Amino acid sequence: MDIKAKSLELHRKLKGKLEIVSRVPVKTKEDLSLAYTPGVAEACLEIKQDPTASYELTRRWNTVAVITDGTAVLGLGDIGPEAGMPVMEGKCILFKEFADIDALPVCIDSKNPDEIVNTVRLISKSFGGINLEDISAPRCFEIEERLKKECDIPVFHDDQHGTAIIVTAGIINSLRLIGKNKENCKAVICGAGAAGTAIARMLVSFGIGDVTVCDKNGILNRKDCELNNAQRSLAAITNNSLKTGSLTDALVGADVFIGVSAPGIVSEEMISSMAENAIVFAMANPVPEIMPDEAKRAGAAVVGTGRSDFPNQVNNVLAFPGIFKGALSVRASDINEEMKLAAAEAISSLVSDEELSSDYILPAAFDERVGKTVAAAVAKAARKSGVARI
Amino acid sequence: MDIKAKSLELHRKLKGKLEIVSRVPVKTKEDLSLAYTPGVAEACLEIKQDPTASYELTRRWNTVAVITDGTAVLGLGDIGPEAGMPVMEGKCILFKEFADIDALPVCIDSKNPDEIVNTVRLISKSFGGINLEDISAPRCFEIEERLKKECDIPVFHDDQHGTAIIVTAGIINSLRLIGKNKENCKAVICGAGAAGTAIARMLVSFGIGDVTVCDKNGILNRKDCELNNAQRSLAAITNNSLKTGSLTDALVGADVFIGVSAPGIVSEEMISSMAENAIVFAMANPVPEIMPDEAKRAGAAVVGTGRSDFPNQVNNVLAFPGIFKGALSVRASDINEEMKLAAAEAISSLVSDEELSSDYILPAAFDERVGKTVAAAVAKAARKSGVARI
Repeated sequence: MDIKAKSLELHRKLKGKLEIVSRVPVKTKEDLSLAYTPGVAEACLEIKQDPTASYELTRRWNTVAVITDGTAVLGLGDIGPEAGMPVMEGKCILFKEFADIDALPVCIDSKNPDEIVNTVRLISKSFGGINLEDISAPRCFEIEERLKKECDIPVFHDDQHGTAIIVTAGIINSLRLIGKNKENCKAVICGAGAAGTAIARMLVSFGIGDVTVCDKNGILNRKDCELNNAQRSLAAITNNSLKTGSLTDALVGADVFIGVSAPGIVSEEMISSMAENAIVFAMANPVPEIMPDEAKRAGAAVVGTGRSDFPNQVNNVLAFPGIFKGALSVRASDINEEMKLAAAEAISSLVSDEELSSDYILPAAFDERVGKTVAAAVAKAARKSGVARI
Repeated sequence: MDIKAKSLELHRKLKGKLEIVSRVPVKTKEDLSLAYTPGVAEACLEIKQDPTASYELTRRWNTVAVITDGTAVLGLGDIGPEAGMPVMEGKCILFKEFADIDALPVCIDSKNPDEIVNTVRLISKSFGGINLEDISAPRCFEIEERLKKECDIPVFHDDQHGTAIIVTAGIINSLRLIGKNKENCKAVICGAGAAGTAIARMLVSFGIGDVTVCDKNGILNRKDCELNNAQRSLAAITNNSLKTGSLTDALVGADVFIGVSAPGIVSEEMISSMAENAIVFAMANPVPEIMPDEAKRAGAAVVGTGRSDFPNQVNNVLAFPGIFKGALSVRASDINEEMKLAAAEAISSLVSDEELSSDYILPAAFDERVGKTVAAAVAKAARKSGVARI
């Protein structure tokens, strides 16, 4: 039986991948009067007096809502709120397994950014953090930006920043392996959706000297009058030398290729045209922009993909559990640039000099050190950057 | 240590009364590919094709959201969304313990009925049912009514209907005990908030011959020009003989007193003025309208309260777990009058003729038969009344 059939069978058998359980016995009248009325009134009054006590007396301190509108679920596109739920439940169990966070899935039945922002804002005081998931670009940018302003808990769109953090960790270690310098590095990103945009922004803020983004119309250039808002703000911080042309043109002499686009769009010739010791992250799923063996044959020094059956998997599970754990642990009001960079550096630090090789740039998804190391680094960065509240 | 201090200590120790756990192991790459990507895509596609498959492939079939705006929490009034959470978490664990339902708490940061209705509607496709909780009257009436129309899952405001169902069950058994006939029965309800209103409506629809409601201004009368909308629609179906006056006036010759109002407002004299074998449910909490020993001294045949330390506790936990379990079991689109009455009759049926006494009108909260019996009766009534979908 193939993985699809096997997974469907598992879903049918389980009828839901998560469950809500009680942490307190309710077997006697006294239990009831302590966990519920009349005793519970005391906890309510404490929180009324000081709303931050909600982090002491309820599960808020460890709770994240995983929220989607179902518009960009996996590679399936806009499949709606009900159909997005199996992925959200999956995400929630990853939060539990990888960081012992209580995550609950909420699928919103609207594609209107105003409605989505209002809904999330109005329920946000029930949670310690908000993980946005599988919301289509460019709507995801506005939705996240507005929610970050309107909520006083961390809001994090994982498809953007989770991916950007792992890619940055991979780039840090790739540069370390081949001995290149980030300031002199030319990176080309193919794909200007949620992930591509966040990767570009993060690599710029990380300090990669030259970042260029391509979409299906070629190189993004701030002189182009036909850009939409999201493209314009991305073009404003990338492609400083105002290159024009296609992805093929962009790749000539580039040190890094990052694909978050479409299967098979990069040829061996294109990789050959890159600088020596090229770094290739071909993350189209399930079929990458170029297969690892082809990229290596064409001269790539490091190849990563989104797949678990090839080396160097860019897997968001390396980032989001520890990021939220760290943010929750200090009651951070935000997950900011400093915390994201700290996460990327923490992930890259888990590959020792002895281990580092072209096939081992990133720690494995099930490396137990990852969650805790990321959480500690993120908490520290939250404190240093002034967003920690305890 | 008293119960308040003990409960607060428990809340501090627990830091949250519920927890979300995984029902599937995620220890290997294969686990991950089955529970999450890429395998999970199949479950998504099934649901995209047929949204009702969300009841087969996700936890929706067993999931209820417990939703408040924090405006009428216990007897504490408007304490806000954060401070309402300890009660919502408590309610969720009761759902789990008494009916094995996965309930998750959502506190909404708005008092505006439009915003509350929109928020709940937009997240409703994540759940199998909505339990509204501790929303102040008269806003709760409009909010529930609109949500019942706008959502295709059952919406149930427990403070209204849960209480009404248990009271009706108590009345059924009290009448059975003392041999009175419902058609000839005069009932006086004191309190026209969420519970009082729902009790009045339910007793009318159950067939009590004469139902009169009092609030702090006295007997509710449809000729009164100063009634608000909620009062007017309640007056329209009660007090057919157009009585005027105070609660004291209303009680003269009444067979049933139901208090959901304020401590100590009923005197022994008022009870003495009632018909022989008076039935008294004095549910103000924690101090009833009249203490049971006083009511009995004044001639009451049956006395119930909201308290667990007196006989005949009117405890909503007898109703809501089984009601939702029954509604979920047949994927009911609504919890309608027929289902509520079936629940009341199921609860009353659990007290046998041999057991029935003035101190045993209602089954105990921890009677294990209750949840299942109510669920079965509710499911049957859902089928019969045409709201069952499987």
